[in-house]
Amino acid sequence: MTHQTLPTGSVSPEQAAREQSLVDEVVASFAGAESPRLRELMEALARHVHAFVRETRLTEEEWAAAIEFLTAVGHITDDKRQEFILLSDALGLSMQTITVNNEAVGAATEATVFGPFFVEGAPRIELGGDLAFGAKGQPCWVEGTVTDTEGRPLPGARIEVWEADEDGFYDVQYGDGRTAARAHLFTDDNGAYRFWAVTPTPYPIPHDGPVGQMLQAVGRSPMRASHLHFMVSAEGQRTLVTHIFVAGDDYLTHDSVFGVRDSLVRDFALQPAGTPTPDGRDLGDTEWTRTRFDIVLAPAQTASTS
Amino acid sequence: MTHQTLPTGSVSPEQAAREQSLVDEVVASFAGAESPRLRELMEALARHVHAFVRETRLTEEEWAAAIEFLTAVGHITDDKRQEFILLSDALGLSMQTITVNNEAVGAATEATVFGPFFVEGAPRIELGGDLAFGAKGQPCWVEGTVTDTEGRPLPGARIEVWEADEDGFYDVQYGDGRTAARAHLFTDDNGAYRFWAVTPTPYPIPHDGPVGQMLQAVGRSPMRASHLHFMVSAEGQRTLVTHIFVAGDDYLTHDSVFGVRDSLVRDFALQPAGTPTPDGRDLGDTEWTRTRFDIVLAPAQTASTS
Repeated sequence: MTHQTLPTGSVSPEQAAREQSLVDEVVASFAGAESPRLRELMEALARHVHAFVRETRLTEEEWAAAIEFLTAVGHITDDKRQEFILLSDALGLSMQTITVNNEAVGAATEATVFGPFFVEGAPRIELGGDLAFGAKGQPCWVEGTVTDTEGRPLPGARIEVWEADEDGFYDVQYGDGRTAARAHLFTDDNGAYRFWAVTPTPYPIPHDGPVGQMLQAVGRSPMRASHLHFMVSAEGQRTLVTHIFVAGDDYLTHDSVFGVRDSLVRDFALQPAGTPTPDGRDLGDTEWTRTRFDIVLAPAQTASTS
Repeated sequence: MTHQTLPTGSVSPEQAAREQSLVDEVVASFAGAESPRLRELMEALARHVHAFVRETRLTEEEWAAAIEFLTAVGHITDDKRQEFILLSDALGLSMQTITVNNEAVGAATEATVFGPFFVEGAPRIELGGDLAFGAKGQPCWVEGTVTDTEGRPLPGARIEVWEADEDGFYDVQYGDGRTAARAHLFTDDNGAYRFWAVTPTPYPIPHDGPVGQMLQAVGRSPMRASHLHFMVSAEGQRTLVTHIFVAGDDYLTHDSVFGVRDSLVRDFALQPAGTPTPDGRDLGDTEWTRTRFDIVLAPAQTASTS
């Protein structure tokens, strides 16, 4: 627990003492919390939000604007629209929470944001199957292995994959009950996997609400870099939630939710129409892409590396 | 602008680098903000909220609980109920904003929270008049002076006063259009004022929503220490929004919104029934109280004392 002391150069000692005394009073008010962890969280929250107000010399008008903003975020949020998660995403907080909870372990593949579009119970496909199920998009062959941090193959690892179609929509966004561009499959005896999907394309996060207004006011795009979602689990290993991103994508450097990690960018090599496919599938005169993603899972319940 | 570096002892250098790199990326994303001030605020917000997540090693379940809490705060908020302001109050943020914006200047009276119950256009009373207008409560004589920081009286200073009745309700909370326990008056040629009110009593902030649940989970009372609101303005002076509190009140040390400053606590001396009143008013067999509040206004547009 760090106790931050602000630089007092900008205010008088009397003023600094008043401000600090208030922080101390607020922090002390959580001493009777029902759990030590809640106390720790509330104390840290109080210290950081007070430091924000003191450091920025937040004006009363700015405070009122913040209340108004949060009120608008609350009012657009309903069963289908979660603007608080969008806000967390747009501030990089969702990604930071993922990062903190998936500490670096050897060569383990990096995690990234889960996003709102995972669905339990997606269909199973066989190795080499196609998860598009009619979703619009350029065919894409994906292959790789799943191993542990010692390089040992993990047969029978479960891989969930989901993605938007080429119009930027997930199946559930159509509201017609369709299931497309999602599936699960299992690695073979050598820990290898392969499937057909569609080449990912960029799409915006919902930006017709207060978070969209915030992005506009700070000159940021609502676009997410093109990506393919993975969730990979295997006995004794930490479950990995991640994406792969498309090398050369316009939004790699300014993904609206800060999900891009350099280690997750992959070449989606364009294959001219007529190029023989790995499994002999006949794609006629359609271009397609192929990529490789070798996944390394960390051991389960990895202790902090302290 | 302070750039905080967290202690890195608890995570590996690789992990610390990943977390810091994300913070840097988020901070950099605000570089194109429409105003330098918005950029400054967003950068500081990002640094502090990320430091909170990193320092507490916030779990994904805790993150989800925070989203759920904010969603509930948003949903109870409407035209009559402002749970985000309550949340700001209960975290001491409203009081810290007031403190930051009313910097200490000589002997100037300290400010405190404005609260939601001020009403424009409250009736004027003459010096020595009664602002109760039928509000239930023990009569209370309040007197004092308004001066500047040089001790010079401020004749004609405008004083707005408002308070809850002895049941803990402001007039506007009854919803029947009544006006009671609020008024404005002006200081005399010597900068003095006097009026009758009712002795303040404690009351809770609304605590049937998520903020009330939070207070309960941390073992805090929703009660506000008994208080009488003042807003005092005079030509050339900084407008003062403050309260006086009642010495000996049960909640002085744990006011739910952190509004109490020691300098604002006053003796409300109990007067036995039959004690002659300052203005000859006949209170029959009623006990009453009296207090004194000498108000010192800071000069308007006081520059930061840096």
